[in-house]
Amino acid sequence: MHKNNLDLFFNPKFVALVGATEKRESLSCCILKNLIHMGYKGTIYPVNPKYKSVFNLPCYPSLLELPQQVELVIIAVPAKYVHNILEQQGKLGLKNAVIITAGFEEIGNEGLKLAENLKEIMLKYKLRILGPNCLGTLDNHSSFTTSFIPWGRVCRPKRGGVTILSQSGSVAHTLLDLASQEGIGIARIANYGNRMDIGESDLLSYFAEDENTKVVAIYMESVDNGKSFVQAAAKCSKAKPIVSIKVGKGKAGEIAAKSHTGAIAGRYEIYKAAFRKAGILEAFTLEAFIDGAKALSMQKAPKGNRILIITNGGGFGVMAADGCNERDLEVPLPSTELKNRLRIKYSGFYVISNPIDLTGNASDENYKSAINEFFVNSDEYDAAIIIPLMALQFMTENIVDIVSQCSNASGKPAVICTIGGAFSVKIKQMFEDKNLPVYPSPERAVRAMKFLVDRATFEKELNCL
Amino acid sequence: MHKNNLDLFFNPKFVALVGATEKRESLSCCILKNLIHMGYKGTIYPVNPKYKSVFNLPCYPSLLELPQQVELVIIAVPAKYVHNILEQQGKLGLKNAVIITAGFEEIGNEGLKLAENLKEIMLKYKLRILGPNCLGTLDNHSSFTTSFIPWGRVCRPKRGGVTILSQSGSVAHTLLDLASQEGIGIARIANYGNRMDIGESDLLSYFAEDENTKVVAIYMESVDNGKSFVQAAAKCSKAKPIVSIKVGKGKAGEIAAKSHTGAIAGRYEIYKAAFRKAGILEAFTLEAFIDGAKALSMQKAPKGNRILIITNGGGFGVMAADGCNERDLEVPLPSTELKNRLRIKYSGFYVISNPIDLTGNASDENYKSAINEFFVNSDEYDAAIIIPLMALQFMTENIVDIVSQCSNASGKPAVICTIGGAFSVKIKQMFEDKNLPVYPSPERAVRAMKFLVDRATFEKELNCL
Repeated sequence: MHKNNLDLFFNPKFVALVGATEKRESLSCCILKNLIHMGYKGTIYPVNPKYKSVFNLPCYPSLLELPQQVELVIIAVPAKYVHNILEQQGKLGLKNAVIITAGFEEIGNEGLKLAENLKEIMLKYKLRILGPNCLGTLDNHSSFTTSFIPWGRVCRPKRGGVTILSQSGSVAHTLLDLASQEGIGIARIANYGNRMDIGESDLLSYFAEDENTKVVAIYMESVDNGKSFVQAAAKCSKAKPIVSIKVGKGKAGEIAAKSHTGAIAGRYEIYKAAFRKAGILEAFTLEAFIDGAKALSMQKAPKGNRILIITNGGGFGVMAADGCNERDLEVPLPSTELKNRLRIKYSGFYVISNPIDLTGNASDENYKSAINEFFVNSDEYDAAIIIPLMALQFMTENIVDIVSQCSNASGKPAVICTIGGAFSVKIKQMFEDKNLPVYPSPERAVRAMKFLVDRATFEKELNCL
Repeated sequence: MHKNNLDLFFNPKFVALVGATEKRESLSCCILKNLIHMGYKGTIYPVNPKYKSVFNLPCYPSLLELPQQVELVIIAVPAKYVHNILEQQGKLGLKNAVIITAGFEEIGNEGLKLAENLKEIMLKYKLRILGPNCLGTLDNHSSFTTSFIPWGRVCRPKRGGVTILSQSGSVAHTLLDLASQEGIGIARIANYGNRMDIGESDLLSYFAEDENTKVVAIYMESVDNGKSFVQAAAKCSKAKPIVSIKVGKGKAGEIAAKSHTGAIAGRYEIYKAAFRKAGILEAFTLEAFIDGAKALSMQKAPKGNRILIITNGGGFGVMAADGCNERDLEVPLPSTELKNRLRIKYSGFYVISNPIDLTGNASDENYKSAINEFFVNSDEYDAAIIIPLMALQFMTENIVDIVSQCSNASGKPAVICTIGGAFSVKIKQMFEDKNLPVYPSPERAVRAMKFLVDRATFEKELNCL
């Protein structure tokens, strides 16, 4: 498959929308509004025999009447009409389609027949198809999308390096919304639904070479082809981290997955082995998935697993230390020499150990001394978990610049945990604007750190080969 | 110990604050401002030889000069002066003290000596002491507190039934803030820090009989006395659920806990066994702790563990089903008769199974039919996890009243998962105002349900004894 084929699913210059309408309850209406709202710069040709124009764009009765060849056809008509459109587009030599329409294999026998019909047409004309039963794509750099989820109900995240592959549409748009909340920059999203043709293997190969994609996050219920998936993933994970969540693991989940996209979830153990082989970092919950993608997109992999914990809330230090223990991250005690270097900087009864507990009296400047002595000017630690509780009276917004400057100076990765109300939420955004990922509990900060350490381990293995 | 003794720590009519000042950086300044801000109705006597008045309240040179016996003395002077105050109060027959001051056993040898000194005075005069090194108490019903964390940095949660016991002060005030975010009503908070005298055993006995306390949530690093703790907890958990998080589990955490409050964390396995024996529901992360307390305070325990899952986002249904599998909750398929009853209500290609997937076309009314047929008018399920994604276009605020009315009519517990931006946040608050707990991921909703099921199991065991 040629790379440019898939490019046209994300960045087409000319696109047709079949089934276009201004009717608010229609998916195609939402798609068109979303494209306009995002500021898509290409040309959109609405297609529908019922209208002369749709949202002030000239509307064409069929694909046959379009003034030029389009690079992508978005099909959003009822299931029983989709094969006609596809046949038409095949005859015209239009190679690429996103089929939004649902009502195929996921609804059982009747839909299965329609799906087989589509597949025949696809093979006859050598078409490339994303879907059916999907949201299709979103490209946050080219400002193109085929999604029908209204902006306003879902926030558009900032541009960035995380690309999401999701078999489920609802998971795709929810991740979009979560990315925006979590300060994660998004490159691209692909939702392939019933996956008649293009699936994770093709997309992974494509994203392996995509310059805008720095981290790939995959939500999977099943896989198109095990062997090509592992090959594509292994190739991709050499270039950039992949984090994945596999669902449909237990019996109840398998049955649910089958109803959802008509695909068999398959034995989970096989997936686990494949993930390991391909260097995919596995997440076990939705939050771990988002947390991992966030850490990997904002921070680099550490050189080792000796973790420094700094806090002004003793209990949170204990929880973080427990979390490190559980995940095989080391929390080594500092050398006496290092402790003495820091002791002279403090007047208070601070606990100078690991965790460092700056207690309720902590100020931003106390954090600065601690990070400088233990992290910047020492090689006893490879990475830091920093837990500034902002409710305490001497803590100010300056903590953000202090941590950011020190962690940059150290050349080592850090993750942040801060918990609480409005003030903490503001601080979280400020940290994330500096690419320091923030988590709302010590355990989640530790788990995010573990993704960075696991990525480091994989990179080391690669270098040994 | 007489019940009224501890009452005076939460609801004193006359209280002295030793070390009172208007100096902003001082803890006692924050305590006084907090009391005034909360609208405390009792009488506060500031004590400090340096001032004639503090915040417009007449200030007394020492406890000896107070115009009446106070029921509680709050001590917030430097560590080296505390024993003088305590000696004075003992001589005056003032029995109860909260010692806010830090700098005792948690800082090592020097502090240990001071602490032993205090202990002698306590025994001599038969005083009851909370602390030292603590925030003390907060009573959300009597509007009394000894906390020095400024309101404004921490939100005051609404009045309600959850009482928090926490060895750690930072955890206590963070939980206060989280409770407010999570719509959890708080009854009381007690933070006992170094636990010279009053600890979890006394407090649990007291809260077992406290009418305002419906659920007890305990953050523990260590325990005062294993045997009395198990006795007190067993007595308390007969009357109301207890959820607990034990930290200082691994080696790194144990060392950290020792530095934090000067106490030995002890072998975790022993705690696990004690928790089981006493009917305490154990949480393994900070979020599980909050999530469990929330579910237990808003919903009752179900009759069994057959869980119904309803969603309009197929992928989330699969994740919830996986989660149930992992936690030994059943996700039974519906009977054919039940399926047919719902099938005739829908025109769409909805998946009528368990999970029920109402797809992207779902409306509030579709949820109503599903909950009514499967949950209200059927006995095939004991509890429901409802996952309405609000980004989809036909979903409106009405979903809140629909779910609330149906779940009330069913007489069975339900928990909600909804995920996303501003609109979902609004819906979350509306649900929680109706006592329906909302979680931001399917796995967390499942885990919360598991707390309810575990409580049910414990209640059944009690009834068999």
